[in-house]
Amino acid sequence: MTFEEARAQFPVLGRYAYLNAGSTGPLPRTAIDAVTARLERDLAEGRSGTAYIEEIVELRERVRGRIAAVLETSAELVALTDSTTRGCQIVVAGLGLGPDDEIVTTDEEHFGLTGQLHGSGARIVVVDADEDALLAAVTPRTRLIAVSHVLWTTGRRLDLRRLREPDGPPLLVDGAQSAGAIAVDLAGSDFYTVSTHKWLCGPDPSGALFVRDPDRLRVSLPSVFSQQSHEPDGTFVPKDGARRFDSGWIGAAALSGLEASLEIHPDWRYEAAAKAAARCRELVAPLADVVTPAGQSTLVSFHPPGDPTALVAALARQAVMVRELPGRNLVRASCGWWTSEEDLQRLVDGIAAV
Amino acid sequence: MTFEEARAQFPVLGRYAYLNAGSTGPLPRTAIDAVTARLERDLAEGRSGTAYIEEIVELRERVRGRIAAVLETSAELVALTDSTTRGCQIVVAGLGLGPDDEIVTTDEEHFGLTGQLHGSGARIVVVDADEDALLAAVTPRTRLIAVSHVLWTTGRRLDLRRLREPDGPPLLVDGAQSAGAIAVDLAGSDFYTVSTHKWLCGPDPSGALFVRDPDRLRVSLPSVFSQQSHEPDGTFVPKDGARRFDSGWIGAAALSGLEASLEIHPDWRYEAAAKAAARCRELVAPLADVVTPAGQSTLVSFHPPGDPTALVAALARQAVMVRELPGRNLVRASCGWWTSEEDLQRLVDGIAAV
Repeated sequence: MTFEEARAQFPVLGRYAYLNAGSTGPLPRTAIDAVTARLERDLAEGRSGTAYIEEIVELRERVRGRIAAVLETSAELVALTDSTTRGCQIVVAGLGLGPDDEIVTTDEEHFGLTGQLHGSGARIVVVDADEDALLAAVTPRTRLIAVSHVLWTTGRRLDLRRLREPDGPPLLVDGAQSAGAIAVDLAGSDFYTVSTHKWLCGPDPSGALFVRDPDRLRVSLPSVFSQQSHEPDGTFVPKDGARRFDSGWIGAAALSGLEASLEIHPDWRYEAAAKAAARCRELVAPLADVVTPAGQSTLVSFHPPGDPTALVAALARQAVMVRELPGRNLVRASCGWWTSEEDLQRLVDGIAAV
Repeated sequence: MTFEEARAQFPVLGRYAYLNAGSTGPLPRTAIDAVTARLERDLAEGRSGTAYIEEIVELRERVRGRIAAVLETSAELVALTDSTTRGCQIVVAGLGLGPDDEIVTTDEEHFGLTGQLHGSGARIVVVDADEDALLAAVTPRTRLIAVSHVLWTTGRRLDLRRLREPDGPPLLVDGAQSAGAIAVDLAGSDFYTVSTHKWLCGPDPSGALFVRDPDRLRVSLPSVFSQQSHEPDGTFVPKDGARRFDSGWIGAAALSGLEASLEIHPDWRYEAAAKAAARCRELVAPLADVVTPAGQSTLVSFHPPGDPTALVAALARQAVMVRELPGRNLVRASCGWWTSEEDLQRLVDGIAAV
């Protein structure tokens, strides 16, 4: 598949310089066709019956397998969720933490993660987004280190292998800005969340959760998919592997669309996305204060010359889609494997024009 | 709107005697048209930008208002979720229960509820699905009574006002088989879950949660919609009212479909559904052992003359959709306001033929 063929899968790119996959990815035509075909079936045939349920369960397994392939892991260790937020909830609730426990995190995390850390009732220790600072904050009370693989703010990538020390606390990784954007090495991670509607271009919302050792995490927020059998008081025999952490029903239409979205990514995706991000840095640097270090991820964040809100609005009027990171005086461009030189030229022309 | 006009909104009824809204409702044409129109926009315009987000937030508020109208309550007390399961998680996690606490429930509840009760770590006290038995099981340690309004098994309706004693424990109600099916009186309920993809005919999954006193329940599983502002350690200022319990992102397409689904229900829905259920009981009673008492709900459950699995399969081959309740030797027919005399005749003809 050539670059132009791969890019042509996304109608939105015909008009927009769409540089916001870090919020929500571009949708491929095939995914929407799969969704609408399935909806027409649901409409005419109903959403009921043994065959219907079996088909959905098979679809879930195919999607699980495809997400496992993105993470280069086994499908047995992947749960289907609807978001990174949900994955974080499942892990944090399962650990059963209380006020005597500590969680170490960085000052550059998304509320989808930090909200759950706070919700746990544990003491949250916030340090600079730096491997040394994180490790230095670990105490005998630390029950979890919780960080992003790629920081949604600056695009900096953390070294997960360094953070996971052999006798240290387990590592929960927010993979919202990494899975599908950069090659993921799960070796350092005990738990890794995936948001499939960002870099993997799926219907929103959709997501997944990697759990290295499913038997060691309690199923505190079970769905009907968590159990093989259950008693009237709610005790249950969990499914094997990470399926027990599946967060709930996903409609046939969304599953069909997600399956189609997961099929479109070319072999050269990570290389192309990294090149696009490097080129973006290069083009933006003369015009704005780029805060993303080189060689990190597919995000390029910068302090704009003027007001960030005004810049994002001005760019949107020229069909260039980026986002502001509120309260940080930052604008963020998301570069995918589908991003072209022309997209980036439109971005820098727009910045230069304000 | 006449019965025939109202019924014609559902293409599935053209072929099927669709008697399984207790699992998943029939979809109206207008909902699928709204979904596909919105998906085409997402495809061409992307899922990004200030206007896009504002539109989704407005759509959320319109949907919230419509669900509040179904419950005859204020939108301020309604959170948007994706299922009854999620609503139960939010309540149970928010109560922060432990092994010294007790929850009283019945032996006829769905795992969507009981799984969360078990997940809480509290002691679960299971009694007969009867108001007196529930009240008799309350002790000073009881922190919650958790029951269905309409039991998904037998279709029996519980008297919620009786269960909520002035100085007694709060009442969590699983409304999966009631909201949209029968008129709901929230007066007895502290928390009431709604499944909008069943009797309200919305896209799956979708749901809501009524919280009588939002300030008194902790937000333990926050989503990005829960907060007005937050700190790096995850502490946050919650939104006003029950919006703080919104469980997460809902895609524009699903919201558009749900809004359309909530618009189609005629004024006479509860009366017509009750009549259909009464007629169903009357027709089935000579052929099978009906366990649903009269005048309860829109479900009609019965012990079939032979094997329930075989009966459900035989009926499906005749395009009559009902479901088995596994392990209970029960078959359940769901009668909606859209159910016709012919639908019911096809059901009884199918039962008589085995």
